[in-house]
Amino acid sequence: MLKAVIDLGSNSVRLVVYQQGPHGTQKEVDNLKQVVRLSNHINREGRISDEGIRITVHVLRQFKQLCEAYEVEEVICVATQAVRIAKNREELVERIYRETGIPVRILSGEEEARYGYLAVVNTIPLEEALTVDVGGGSTEITYFKDRKVLEKISIPYGGVNATKEFLQGDPPTSKEMKRLERTLLTELEKYPWTAGRRCPVIGMGGAARTIAKIHQAQRQYPLSILHAYQMWPYEVTGILELLLSTPLTKRKEMGGLSADRADIIIAGAAILDLVVRRAEANQFILSNKGLRDGILMEEVLKAKNEELLSDMLLHSIENNLDHFHMNRAHAWRVACFSERLFTAMKEAGIHAFGKEELKWLKTAALLHDVGRSISIYDASKHTFYLLLHAPLYGVTHRERVLIAAIASYKSTKQVSTELSRYEEFLHEEDLPLVIQLGVLLRFVRTLDRTETGDIKEIEFIGGEKGGTIRVRAAEDSFLQMELASEWVKKLSKAYHRDFSLEVNRDGIRE
Amino acid sequence: MLKAVIDLGSNSVRLVVYQQGPHGTQKEVDNLKQVVRLSNHINREGRISDEGIRITVHVLRQFKQLCEAYEVEEVICVATQAVRIAKNREELVERIYRETGIPVRILSGEEEARYGYLAVVNTIPLEEALTVDVGGGSTEITYFKDRKVLEKISIPYGGVNATKEFLQGDPPTSKEMKRLERTLLTELEKYPWTAGRRCPVIGMGGAARTIAKIHQAQRQYPLSILHAYQMWPYEVTGILELLLSTPLTKRKEMGGLSADRADIIIAGAAILDLVVRRAEANQFILSNKGLRDGILMEEVLKAKNEELLSDMLLHSIENNLDHFHMNRAHAWRVACFSERLFTAMKEAGIHAFGKEELKWLKTAALLHDVGRSISIYDASKHTFYLLLHAPLYGVTHRERVLIAAIASYKSTKQVSTELSRYEEFLHEEDLPLVIQLGVLLRFVRTLDRTETGDIKEIEFIGGEKGGTIRVRAAEDSFLQMELASEWVKKLSKAYHRDFSLEVNRDGIRE
Repeated sequence: MLKAVIDLGSNSVRLVVYQQGPHGTQKEVDNLKQVVRLSNHINREGRISDEGIRITVHVLRQFKQLCEAYEVEEVICVATQAVRIAKNREELVERIYRETGIPVRILSGEEEARYGYLAVVNTIPLEEALTVDVGGGSTEITYFKDRKVLEKISIPYGGVNATKEFLQGDPPTSKEMKRLERTLLTELEKYPWTAGRRCPVIGMGGAARTIAKIHQAQRQYPLSILHAYQMWPYEVTGILELLLSTPLTKRKEMGGLSADRADIIIAGAAILDLVVRRAEANQFILSNKGLRDGILMEEVLKAKNEELLSDMLLHSIENNLDHFHMNRAHAWRVACFSERLFTAMKEAGIHAFGKEELKWLKTAALLHDVGRSISIYDASKHTFYLLLHAPLYGVTHRERVLIAAIASYKSTKQVSTELSRYEEFLHEEDLPLVIQLGVLLRFVRTLDRTETGDIKEIEFIGGEKGGTIRVRAAEDSFLQMELASEWVKKLSKAYHRDFSLEVNRDGIRE
Repeated sequence: MLKAVIDLGSNSVRLVVYQQGPHGTQKEVDNLKQVVRLSNHINREGRISDEGIRITVHVLRQFKQLCEAYEVEEVICVATQAVRIAKNREELVERIYRETGIPVRILSGEEEARYGYLAVVNTIPLEEALTVDVGGGSTEITYFKDRKVLEKISIPYGGVNATKEFLQGDPPTSKEMKRLERTLLTELEKYPWTAGRRCPVIGMGGAARTIAKIHQAQRQYPLSILHAYQMWPYEVTGILELLLSTPLTKRKEMGGLSADRADIIIAGAAILDLVVRRAEANQFILSNKGLRDGILMEEVLKAKNEELLSDMLLHSIENNLDHFHMNRAHAWRVACFSERLFTAMKEAGIHAFGKEELKWLKTAALLHDVGRSISIYDASKHTFYLLLHAPLYGVTHRERVLIAAIASYKSTKQVSTELSRYEEFLHEEDLPLVIQLGVLLRFVRTLDRTETGDIKEIEFIGGEKGGTIRVRAAEDSFLQMELASEWVKKLSKAYHRDFSLEVNRDGIRE
């Protein structure tokens, strides 16, 4: 069953079409954005002009057409600041309903803020943070602690209306910037909790995304992932200063900045920068998930009967297993036996890895086969590519690189080559770590090479210097055991220990 | 329905499991290789030793187990030189059948050569070539012209037995090498047609693959595709010389060379080099497709009722459309309207592109959506990745890069970035070409943005300086037309002409 969410914002109207999957999962099948700049169509009396109404209805008819093509069953359409403040908002809502059949729900500033919070708190693993979502006509800020939202506000300035009201210069003058900052500060000072929080600030929305994109372009970031991208607070200020020293025509050519946002980006960046500075943030994190995702998340949580996702990483792993049509039983067997061997080897003193490393190993174990969806040839290479690009929440970019390398491990030669482009993420001890966990995973994978669950139990008997991996298996599992015995040799080499493999079949020891 | 092909070779035993698709297509779902070195198990009396039989049966039982796990319905097992020459081959075949139920078909040298030819002639677009397949215990050579095989032979030397008989030194001495060459030459001289052909030589099998891999590693080739990789004949000699100057322990660490082939690669390389030199080849081309693929191809051709694939590129496009679950109707609409617009613009004198460029455009048009199978976010990036890695026959590596760039075109900025790693493939005029065809494709894609076939007809009315693109469309296709009008602007920019869009809906001109 397909559903759609439409976000009728002050700068743009966005549509996302998604499909509900079998495991409380969801898959986005299409999305579309049209720039409407509704805030620019609000006249002096605070009414959306006829032209504004006409364009909005026109775009929604287009979206409706796409929804019909997909045979979407339910369309959820929400409107934010521009509609919220318009005196004739009821007229707009009526016209839209009459001409497209789409019911529009006007969100209050607090509801809007709450959806942003929902998107963030279920995709970024933080207990405490400020979120800031700079829209076209308003900015929503929330504060959450222990993943519970404690404060949520909306202030009536966003990229489009702040540009219109304050920033005429090209580039804006420092006088204009000061006036904007004073006005924003007056708004923020109504909420003392926005000051001195010293926690991370999470930025959402187009302006935040653009700041992160420009920063990535400047430093030639080797990953093309935006979500959960981390910056130092002073780097946000740095990008604002760069934008302020660049006239509009040059901004349009700037890497990471799309031409249709070049005019309003300075106001957006200034709002973000001010929130970050006032909060005395210790970190700036980009969330590529926002309002629409919060609305989707609310549906997912309802279906799962949870208030918040209890395990966002697992949820996104499930999404990927569905998306790439993986054999779930095989994936879980490999993850489960990998964990057992990891734990038994740790107890024996073979390695000193902790919870983090186990998380990486299990994630890699669950997703090791995704590359096969592209081709069985070079499947490792494809797994590496997919794990660097698939949506995976609850891990940092560095962790993603490690997980991708562990999951796609074939040989030391191959993994060193794959990782060479990502050296900036790696510590000195990471290569041996990837090799040790990668070999362990390969060994366990071969035990279920036929994906028939012939392996029943795994034990490790030995001590610090090595020992025996004892496996109980089905009678005819000789293919797996023969392949596994090759990997036991590599396991010995990777851990500088002596391991041997003992197979018990139906109670008979070989 | 799943089928499997097993190739019982002199060096290794290989299994491929594949699924027949709905459009005469096929998809490989698994493969596995075990090194057996059967040629080393043939004793002085020319009999496969008991140990040799035991190992072979053992490996085939493993493969049988994997086939059963996949519920394979038909297993085709062929044996080559080592079995062919063994005095007790009937004993081996019987033992295999009794213990695994797999019927083994022993191929004659000519049959083996023919399957190699079938694999090559349907995946590499050449009218005339020599093929050479260096196996473990024999080498098959064919000559084809007008895609028809004219000669096919098998000579009884391959990498494993030639190493055993001639090359004991580490590295081999020049005396040893000369003895080997003399012996090979004596064999080849029985077939005068192997000399002075001055056509391309196509190498198949592990030794040829390894030569190409080493060459790619040496020059840091930016693509990870082997099939249809081109080398100059003197580069084959260069790799042989490099191998001859490297002792075994060092060869094992060499990039592109797997450790379990490091011993036999010199003999294999020497055979290839001799065939290339004797043929006075003008080019060496690697075929990653060989015996097993030839057997599969025979099945495909039977199903299609063709003697040879009449269009190998189209066949591999069909394979990809199936593999990535693409909307075929949409793909064909986009390809068809792209061709019409391309042709109309050419007739008007807007561009001077020819058949080649049209082939690239149509291939890109048919496959433009493959990236969406990974994610709708960054779908262009994924399309680029997939088109550089998916099996696509009938195009060179350079053409693949161009097709991938055209199919994933989003903007000049983006395409320049994507192509920057592949500059060695590009000519000066390629970037404008990619932009012009990429924009044209994007324009046509938006006309079917909803994938509902609302566009009925496309015409170009105008001359060298520009003109009107006239489209007949369904009444409610305003989304597509609005999006298309944006791309018409970009089309004007890319071709330095003035284009406009005219839409006729149900006979009413807008």
